Amino acid sequence: MKFSPLQYVTSLKCLICGKEYTADNRFTCETCGIQGILDVQYDYDKAGSHLTSHISHRVFDHWRYRELLPISHDIPLPHLHIGWTPIYDVPRLAKHIGITKLYLKDDGRNPTNSFKDRASSVGVMKAIEFGFKEIACASTGNAASSLAGLSAAVGLKSFIFVPKRAPEPKLTQLLIFGATVLRVQGTYEQAFDLCGEACQKFGWYNRSSGINPYLVEGKKTAGLEIAEQMSKNLPDWVVVSVGDGCTIGGIGKGLQEMKKLGFIDRVPRLLGVQAEGAKPIYDAFYSCNDLIPTETNTLADSIAVGTPRNWRRAIKMVKESFGEMITVNDEEILEAMRVTARLGGVFGEPAGVTGVAGLQKAIQKGIVKPNESALVVITGNGLKDIQSAKKAAGEVIDVEPDLKSVEEKM
Amino acid sequence: MKFSPLQYVTSLKCLICGKEYTADNRFTCETCGIQGILDVQYDYDKAGSHLTSHISHRVFDHWRYRELLPISHDIPLPHLHIGWTPIYDVPRLAKHIGITKLYLKDDGRNPTNSFKDRASSVGVMKAIEFGFKEIACASTGNAASSLAGLSAAVGLKSFIFVPKRAPEPKLTQLLIFGATVLRVQGTYEQAFDLCGEACQKFGWYNRSSGINPYLVEGKKTAGLEIAEQMSKNLPDWVVVSVGDGCTIGGIGKGLQEMKKLGFIDRVPRLLGVQAEGAKPIYDAFYSCNDLIPTETNTLADSIAVGTPRNWRRAIKMVKESFGEMITVNDEEILEAMRVTARLGGVFGEPAGVTGVAGLQKAIQKGIVKPNESALVVITGNGLKDIQSAKKAAGEVIDVEPDLKSVEEKM
Repeated sequence: MKFSPLQYVTSLKCLICGKEYTADNRFTCETCGIQGILDVQYDYDKAGSHLTSHISHRVFDHWRYRELLPISHDIPLPHLHIGWTPIYDVPRLAKHIGITKLYLKDDGRNPTNSFKDRASSVGVMKAIEFGFKEIACASTGNAASSLAGLSAAVGLKSFIFVPKRAPEPKLTQLLIFGATVLRVQGTYEQAFDLCGEACQKFGWYNRSSGINPYLVEGKKTAGLEIAEQMSKNLPDWVVVSVGDGCTIGGIGKGLQEMKKLGFIDRVPRLLGVQAEGAKPIYDAFYSCNDLIPTETNTLADSIAVGTPRNWRRAIKMVKESFGEMITVNDEEILEAMRVTARLGGVFGEPAGVTGVAGLQKAIQKGIVKPNESALVVITGNGLKDIQSAKKAAGEVIDVEPDLKSVEEKM
Repeated sequence: MKFSPLQYVTSLKCLICGKEYTADNRFTCETCGIQGILDVQYDYDKAGSHLTSHISHRVFDHWRYRELLPISHDIPLPHLHIGWTPIYDVPRLAKHIGITKLYLKDDGRNPTNSFKDRASSVGVMKAIEFGFKEIACASTGNAASSLAGLSAAVGLKSFIFVPKRAPEPKLTQLLIFGATVLRVQGTYEQAFDLCGEACQKFGWYNRSSGINPYLVEGKKTAGLEIAEQMSKNLPDWVVVSVGDGCTIGGIGKGLQEMKKLGFIDRVPRLLGVQAEGAKPIYDAFYSCNDLIPTETNTLADSIAVGTPRNWRRAIKMVKESFGEMITVNDEEILEAMRVTARLGGVFGEPAGVTGVAGLQKAIQKGIVKPNESALVVITGNGLKDIQSAKKAAGEVIDVEPDLKSVEEKM
């Protein structure tokens, strides 16, 4: 098996017991089991010194932070352009939801139109490094299409386990990329477990978020970018929708690292937003107890996770940032789809705009002050779930091909 | 009515009779009628000198060429990030279609996921400059959703006339942006005419491609970018799908301008690709006669144009580049969707990948030599037309949530 040295990675460290492991083809902690998520550790002195002296000459994508990524520097990068997604100042939307300054970071602009490309790109790099020809994941949809796209780009064969409720555009997107798609007649949790068993059985690399220690490092790059792009006007809050916990956990880690490296002098407070119909991390956050798995019932399929794997990391990152969590219902999510598109010019999928809904509610509840500033990460493009968008959108007006017909309908 | 000076624009010139007009709120030539498309003229000495001395300090979006755009420099630019889309070197796809070097420029990465954002962004700027509060267009889909998104971004009210065959994702996309959508029970051509009449009647600005002289200038930026991004390894061919003729006409103009300004020392040959079911420009190109409108029958809805408005510009640009035209059928387009996704990592809509199908056929016919290089512009994201993508994609495999069920299906 081919193995290349990772220049700045020092170990993998269990988020529960703190036990450290060498950074090889490994998943969760031997002692703590599947709950023992491993966190990649770096030599920040060396990584930071190399990064800061080279970054200004680099292309604007997420590989510009390569010293802070667990990738071998002798494996070619996927050719797709990932990350460095635009950040928009949206005053009309800010006024509508009642805050002085609002920014949107549109991660729907990634190659397969979601935030998950950040993680999948690291996933395929690890699969290649560890000598695999096949890679698999279980996903509610976005990680799936993302893995299918990135696998196609680098020439890996991909196997995707999706729960039966995955929206059709997401399924089509991954079929067109040539993935073998296994639709599991069950929940996301069952698809997740089955994927793990199949990887063992067939010798595929397991990209499933949460248990794979390397994936969250890709997600972290959104945090690294926010720090670099916004260094001159860092927002008070960074708002992220929460499903498995990996996204907010990754963004929090990225922001902390950029403070450590001196790019920013404080970490913005994190506001984690869950759907009311899938809020086990929210419950654990405020009860201070271990997470209790729940049933899920929300149209925001990308964050409909009843058994989140990375809840400890999510809660740790929100708490360390002196942040908060909040929940929103499906009606509030649909309203956020409308206003984000109409006043912000960005069409996000339900989970993609859940942060906007959550921020609005946090302002109403006094958690976020109207004179503060906030950045919401839009995690996926609205074209990925047209059925939900149709619920939020209005109706087409049918007219005959003559002016009189138009006049009657105006 | 507000009016701002356009620093480097000198006139609008009829593509048929050559008559020149001042660059104000104007559409086609008074003498030649609707066929007399007006072309924006610039003072290239002044524009070029200012552009070349400032460009290296500018943000990577399509406004970096502002001296070559007919926009007032005192109107705020839309906040959405437009243009400077990535160009990918795709050796596996190159090998598959039989050419030494192949590049894809993924214009599905624009804010509303198509090439048309380049034009719509100029359209909304002109509407604001001319003092309009409302803007309208007729479109097969992409220009519509693009105009809806850009209008939402800058706060204009938009009215969109779509033909009855427009795919649902595109309709939903523009409804979510708050556009008033008028679905005309007729063809694209009827929708086009009705839009013009309604603009007259209700006082809306008409963004319809072809007759609006400013729109094609936005499309031109793809040509400007190709020249700048590829200046060190300029391809022999630039391949573009052709519907109304505006896209290839614009790209050709952009490439010519960059030669004029010294960014490149030759203009790549243009290969224009039409669908067999909608090929009036192809027919006019090889017959050397005036265009004869046709019926249309192709799944590539974005280029299903039977009465193209900008056919003269398209043919002029292809001929001036010593280029060629070719047609492909729907089966070839679906196959191009598959291989572009699976070997290039880019999921394009049917018209978006028609260039790939056309290039492959041009190689087979000896028009393009295997040892040449080519760049294909992918004009729209595949998520915009999931129904067509489903025809190209394979099938999902349904499994029970146990390993035995997976083993049986492998």
